[in-house]
Parts: sequence; C-alpha cells; structure tokens
Amino acid sequence: MNWTLAMRTAKMDPSALREILKTTERLGIINLAGGLPSPKTFPVQAFADACRHVLRHHGEAALQYAVSEGYGPLREAVAAMLPWEVDPDQVLITTGSQQGLDLVAKVLIDPGSPVLVETPTYLGALQAFSPMEPQPVVVACDDEGMMAEDLAAKAAGGRFVYLQPNFQNPTGRTMSEARRIAVLDAAMYAGLPIVEDNPYGELWFDQPPPLPLAARNPEGAIYLGSFSKVLAPGLRLGFLVAPKAVYPKLLQAKQATDLHTSIFTQRMAHEVIKDGFLDRHVPTIRALYKQQRDAMLIALAHEMAGLDVHWNVPAGGMFLWLRMPEGIDTTRLMPQAVMRGVAFVPGAPFYSEASDVRTMRLSFVTASISDIDRAIAALAQTVREALAA
Amino acid sequence: MNWTLAMRTAKMDPSALREILKTTERLGIINLAGGLPSPKTFPVQAFADACRHVLRHHGEAALQYAVSEGYGPLREAVAAMLPWEVDPDQVLITTGSQQGLDLVAKVLIDPGSPVLVETPTYLGALQAFSPMEPQPVVVACDDEGMMAEDLAAKAAGGRFVYLQPNFQNPTGRTMSEARRIAVLDAAMYAGLPIVEDNPYGELWFDQPPPLPLAARNPEGAIYLGSFSKVLAPGLRLGFLVAPKAVYPKLLQAKQATDLHTSIFTQRMAHEVIKDGFLDRHVPTIRALYKQQRDAMLIALAHEMAGLDVHWNVPAGGMFLWLRMPEGIDTTRLMPQAVMRGVAFVPGAPFYSEASDVRTMRLSFVTASISDIDRAIAALAQTVREALAA
Repeated sequence: MNWTLAMRTAKMDPSALREILKTTERLGIINLAGGLPSPKTFPVQAFADACRHVLRHHGEAALQYAVSEGYGPLREAVAAMLPWEVDPDQVLITTGSQQGLDLVAKVLIDPGSPVLVETPTYLGALQAFSPMEPQPVVVACDDEGMMAEDLAAKAAGGRFVYLQPNFQNPTGRTMSEARRIAVLDAAMYAGLPIVEDNPYGELWFDQPPPLPLAARNPEGAIYLGSFSKVLAPGLRLGFLVAPKAVYPKLLQAKQATDLHTSIFTQRMAHEVIKDGFLDRHVPTIRALYKQQRDAMLIALAHEMAGLDVHWNVPAGGMFLWLRMPEGIDTTRLMPQAVMRGVAFVPGAPFYSEASDVRTMRLSFVTASISDIDRAIAALAQTVREALAA
Repeated sequence: MNWTLAMRTAKMDPSALREILKTTERLGIINLAGGLPSPKTFPVQAFADACRHVLRHHGEAALQYAVSEGYGPLREAVAAMLPWEVDPDQVLITTGSQQGLDLVAKVLIDPGSPVLVETPTYLGALQAFSPMEPQPVVVACDDEGMMAEDLAAKAAGGRFVYLQPNFQNPTGRTMSEARRIAVLDAAMYAGLPIVEDNPYGELWFDQPPPLPLAARNPEGAIYLGSFSKVLAPGLRLGFLVAPKAVYPKLLQAKQATDLHTSIFTQRMAHEVIKDGFLDRHVPTIRALYKQQRDAMLIALAHEMAGLDVHWNVPAGGMFLWLRMPEGIDTTRLMPQAVMRGVAFVPGAPFYSEASDVRTMRLSFVTASISDIDRAIAALAQTVREALAA
C-alpha cells in the first residue's frame, strides 16, 4: 500500500516532553517535568453537583449536537470574566487552548509565513503551528519578556507575533507593564497582529499581572484563554477572543475541525462557575502554588549553594527556570537525574533556534513539599557529579 | 492592523447546512434538514450514573491531563467492538470523528494532492480536508456506491480514497458486498489507501451491512468511527483505527491539535458501555429509526404520487435521498418550502463538482411521525407549485 505522507509530517517529531514524561512514570521518580496542575485543586464535588444538575434538567440538550461558537451562557461568562469590554459574540469556545493555536495556524499561516515568537517559547505552540509550515522568527527576550526594539526590527512581513506575557511556559517570566506598552507600540506601528496566549494569568501570587495586550488593542489581537488551570484540564475547555476581521474564519476552521467542543462539558463548566465559584476557588490555587514555589526557592537556595546555578522567582504560574553552570547540557544531564530519582524538562526544545542547552524547566506545583526538597537535593547532587566528571 | 489571512481561508465558506439550519430555528418549521440523532435515544440516566461513578472513584484522574492516544480501557473496548481483529494500540480516540478527518488531512494531504471521493460525498469531509488544499477527484457512483472501474481509472497518484460505505451521508445508500470487493481490489491494485468513514454502520434496520473495507485489508485503510450515533453526539467522542505506517503521525497531529480528547467524557463513555450496554441500547435506536423511515416512505408514496419524484429506500442510518422532477432546483425550492413549514437540505453542496441540483437530503429520525406526514405533504405542495410556476 502506497502511504504517501504529507510533506508537513517530516516536521512532526514525537514530542520530547512526551517521551520524557513516559520515562518518569517509573515508580519513585519525583516528577518536576510535567505541566500538570495539582489535582488537589480540582473541584471534584462541584463537578459532581454540576453533572447531576445538567443531566437532570438539560439532559437532551447537553448530549445533542450544538453550535460551533460554543454554549451561549459560557461565552457570556467568559466575556464577563475578562478585564476589558468583550462582546460575547467575539468569544469562541475551543477544545482546550491548544485547539485555539491550531485554529490560529489554519487561518493565519501560509507555508513560509514569518511568525514571530519569544525565545524560549511554548513548545506546544510551535507544534500546533508546525502543520501549516510557518517560518518561526525568534525575537530577543530578557527577564521582562520580548524586547520591543528587536520586534520592531523583525516585524516586517510577519503574520503575527505569538506571546505568553504571564508566567510564561517554560520560563515563568512575566512581561512588565512598560514592556507591554513598548511591544504593543512596536506591533501597532508595524501593523503586526498579536496572538496572546494566557493560560496561567489567573495564577498570580502577590498581585495580578499587568493588563493583557489584547485589552489595550482588541482589534489587533487574538486572545487565548483556558479553564485548564483554574478548573481542570481533563475537560479540554478553552476559548479565544478575536476581532471581527478574523472571527468568522476561525469559526469556520473550528467547525471543520471538530464541529464543536463537547456541549456537555461546556454546560458542566458553566454550571460550576455561574455563581462566582472562581472568585472563591482560584485564590485557593494561588495560595497553594505560592507555597509550593516558596518551598522550591528555599530548597534551591539551600541545595545549589556554591554551584553557579541561576534561577528566577516567578510571580505566578507553575514553572521556574534554571540555568546550569558552564559545561552542563541539561539534555545529557536528564538520564543521570532520572537515575537519582528526579525528572525535569531540558530547555532546548523550547528554543526555535540557538538553544541555550544549560537551561531547564521545573514545575513546582504537583510534587509535595517534602518531595520538592528531595528532588532538588538529588538534582544538586547530579549537577555536582556532572561537574566533577 | 494588517490581518493577512492564509490563502487556504479563501476556500472556507460558511457551511450551507449551517446557514440553513439557522433559518429552521423559526417556530413551527418541521426540520428534516438536520443531521441530529433523535434525542429520545440518548441514555441520560446511564450517563448520570456514569458521571457519579467516575467522579466518586476516579475524580482526579478524570479531570487531569491525559495521554493523546486516549483512555486505555476505551481503546480496548473500541477494538473489541469492531468486526475484525484490531490491536488496541492501533486505536486513537478523537474529538468526534470529524476530528479524525482533520487529522487524516494533516497527515496525508499536500496542497494539490488528489483525493478521490464519492459523488455526492459527505460535506463535512470536504470541509475538514479543505484547509490542506487537496484536489478532490470525483469518482462515479451508482446505487451500490463507488464504481470500481472509474476508481481504477482515476486512482493513479491519489493520496487516498474517502468513502462512507454504510447508509452514506447524504444519500443513505450502502455499498453492496460485490462492490466492496471490486473497490477494494481496484484500490489495492493501485496501491491506493482507503479512508473509511463509518458513523452510521450500527444503525441497520433488517440486517447488518457487509464487513467494512478496512476489515479486509487493515494495512491499507484508516477506519473512522463515532459514538455520536450510538450514544450521544454532545460528548464529541470518535475514534480511528490506523496501520503502523501512519498511526504515529496521526498521533503527533492529534497531540498538536488538542493534546487529547476530554478524559472525563472518555471515562464516562467507557463506564456506560463496559458491561454490554450497547448490545441492549443500539437495537432500540434501530427499531425507532426503522419505524421513522417507514413512516417517511409511506408519506412519500402517498403525497408524491404522480409528481415524478424519486427516492431510495435506505437500509439503515438517518437519511433518505430524493430527486425532484426536471426543472426543479432544490436550492431555489428551499425558501418556498420553509414558507410552507418544512426544511430540507439541497443536494448541491454535497457534490464536489457537477452538482445534481434536483436532489435533496431528508432526515427521518428527529421529526415525530405526525410531523413527517405534515412535512412531506407540505413538500409535495411546494413541488406542485414550483412545477406550475
């Protein structure tokens, strides 16, 4: 049989993250690699109540085909949640925010289209864009996020710039207010649309992050959000907000892709959140994750002393970014760390080019605090051995 | 703001079906247009019990991220359901079988790739393939389905042939046993892979349809199935079965598209079906739909007498195919029918080329039998008036 694969499949590689996650399923490995929210935060009872209500009162509607835009009351709830004036008609419910990236790619990327990205950037976005064969253009970044001057220099001809301004995956960094203004100015001057991905924005620790870029220029941005980090990822519920210039095409792409997102899970989620549930629930996630981050920072300060390892202090989210001493390649370090009982994600796959092989991503949200202590100690020991070798 | 749309979006039109469905939401219109299963068949109580069980015993796992392949026990259940030996490792759970079409397109279609289709064919497949910009190649069909000689003549260079052999959408027709053998021979001789889409196969009335083409040559076919017609469409649960030559790429495309299908709805569906539920439930759907089909056949025989209107007798599924007299264009007939209180789907959008404008699709499954009688009478009256005009 002559299975001729599309040329784009040559760029589809098994996810490095995925393969790594598989190795960590071994008993006894402390997994700091995953991007999983802490299951302690899942409101299981609220979902159980919501299911019962939805099936008792709206059983047939919740199990039937539904419109591609999404469940009306959920679109209204999303619009009302966002910190700028959003017309519910501009909200499209997606099968997780990953699907938002797939739809954006279908509607905005031709083969070879330049797409500007942070460095490093979210690996899942590179994977979602890849089937449409963009030409990623790496824009320089520092601790405050994307650098406006470099964006201005590279913006010409770009289809859009893709950004995670809040508690970015993988680095945990957040764009400052000043940087948002500068980046927005550069994008507007160049006529460059912004695709703003904000899965972690609600998970702030001490104060909310600055206003989204989309809030400042809604006609120039597609905004992607998710219920995965504030309710539960297993439902696969996300959303996008898009201006009228692109919404109809995104909607048509959505319809062709999976007709609509499960109306049952949409109605369930709406039932859970409709009476201000998130206002009570999300602060408990923030408090838990802050405590977890602090535990990791303390363990790092203690265990990595004198090792020339550097890390940041994320103001929210799930991830912390480490840079190892000269001579360490974290991809090569990984098997040794796993042997010592700890898994992390090497930074290299998050770079579209010029990887910094000394970097790694650590999740601080799922391991217990005692496991974090043990894991960071094991990691420090692994580094020491690697340096001695 | 310079929103440059991808070239492929020029081919994304608002779905004709979708726009028509909107007009039929008007009160009092009897909708024979929809592709919706009858909500009477939804096992609401079984879902309520399953939700309670899943959340009580597996709450955290059912709400967490999950693997892209799908829930293991559901993959095993799918493999066991199918009428040939299927390794669960070859099963991929999809967000409805519509997503299966999207993944197939991403993995097998380059811009301009010839894709062989029936005439008419499922509109949703044309829409799912469209973003990858195939060149559809129309293969002649008769009442037994695709004609093997024409397939053989056009197979060279094709990426795959797309077929719905059972109770096809839109025509309701079924490929005979002899035709399956002939089409399979032609495809195998040409080395042409088959994409076999079978959402309706379980909905047979008097006897099961012949064995799937994929069952006869699993290495040469991707098989798509769905829970939408045997459980409920609102969950968005489908599956595909693919040979090792393409499964890994389909899996990577799945991961990039939406990470995984909702693990909550997967576990719910598995909980419902695990003890032979479908063996008891599906016969009730078959009995209902057969009764509905018979009511429509009787109404047609009665109301269309002397009008030179022709229709088929589907052996299962949800749809019946009508051909109007010379001079009638069903797209132009539609507004007049809606004014008389009945909606149908004109046949034209289902043709990739050379539309037969005299055709229309009628669903017999959702309207009540008294509504079917009234709707067919109204349709006959509309035809009479059009012929007199």
